[in-house]
Amino acid sequence: MFISFEGTEGVGKTTLIRKIYEHFQSQAQDVVLTREPGGTPMAEQIRDLLLAVNHEEQMCNDTELLLMYAARAQHIAQVIMPALEAGKIVLCDRFTDASFAYQCAGRGLSESKLQMLNEHFVSRMPDVTFWLDAPIELGMDRARARGALDRFEQEKVTFFEKVRSGYASLAMREPQRVKRLDATQSPEHVFTQAMNYL
Amino acid sequence: MFISFEGTEGVGKTTLIRKIYEHFQSQAQDVVLTREPGGTPMAEQIRDLLLAVNHEEQMCNDTELLLMYAARAQHIAQVIMPALEAGKIVLCDRFTDASFAYQCAGRGLSESKLQMLNEHFVSRMPDVTFWLDAPIELGMDRARARGALDRFEQEKVTFFEKVRSGYASLAMREPQRVKRLDATQSPEHVFTQAMNYL
Repeated sequence: MFISFEGTEGVGKTTLIRKIYEHFQSQAQDVVLTREPGGTPMAEQIRDLLLAVNHEEQMCNDTELLLMYAARAQHIAQVIMPALEAGKIVLCDRFTDASFAYQCAGRGLSESKLQMLNEHFVSRMPDVTFWLDAPIELGMDRARARGALDRFEQEKVTFFEKVRSGYASLAMREPQRVKRLDATQSPEHVFTQAMNYL
Repeated sequence: MFISFEGTEGVGKTTLIRKIYEHFQSQAQDVVLTREPGGTPMAEQIRDLLLAVNHEEQMCNDTELLLMYAARAQHIAQVIMPALEAGKIVLCDRFTDASFAYQCAGRGLSESKLQMLNEHFVSRMPDVTFWLDAPIELGMDRARARGALDRFEQEKVTFFEKVRSGYASLAMREPQRVKRLDATQSPEHVFTQAMNYL
């Protein structure tokens, strides 16, 4: 089983993933916790490029999208597929839906670019995707409280509103796979919502 | 005018490009000398990832291809298009044909992946491409003499034979754009061949 977790900054993805990870571990199930962009040492180097705040040179939207898929290709081949083929449960903090929400809905890149990258470079979609949804301001307060903001976290509220709308449209299009969780609730309640779906 | 230079390792691209650069400069023409992967500080960081020899984790072919196009997208937007729009001559050490030769012909990636990346992420092809052709062993001797070999240079002769065949098929397919230069000749003679085409 391949489960991904999506949402804007500070909505509580990490807390939920850890709870689900511990739940499966307590049942003696083989479970792998990973994240995007990243998930392998090489993909984490690509993540560093993606998140770095660079005042000298702005990263183009196409570059951002292609770096995301370069990291993803490495992650799928090295971590996700081997784990799934070994019968493990994979919990992944962000996956292709994040590219749709951030790069297409957020940055305005055409969806045809994304579809084409998914067709040619993504061999496996998640079985279930949890979208943790909360008002943008709430999440940004939490993100700011964590310390220095990365290149994405430094974006403005209007950008994250577009990202949130992107996730909302995905949940509408693929209701079987993408499940909205109310992330304004307590971590325990969000966990219970997720486990009810599982 | 946008001119790219292609070929396997050690065929004398750098020498030829410098000669052509100096020729245009001596004519008081605005000329930009650049290279791929790289050409901007950010794209050079991607180049570093691509060329690094990593004994811990093998880079997947898809990752390599997507990193090449991430660097290329940045390079096109930041360097190539602005220079061409300002009426400058752009001399580029490798471009999309290198992805065809190395990643498709060399690594065996499907050409459909490359075509799709070119369609969506490459807005401008070179006007002229010089393919410097020489037997693989000759170039590898020169590359080895330069010092420590990067991840590509460490490949075996059979790999470079495939890359060379890739360039040969491009020259057959696009004879108007891709011009073969006999790189076993002296640098002066290679330069003369190139200038005759221009």
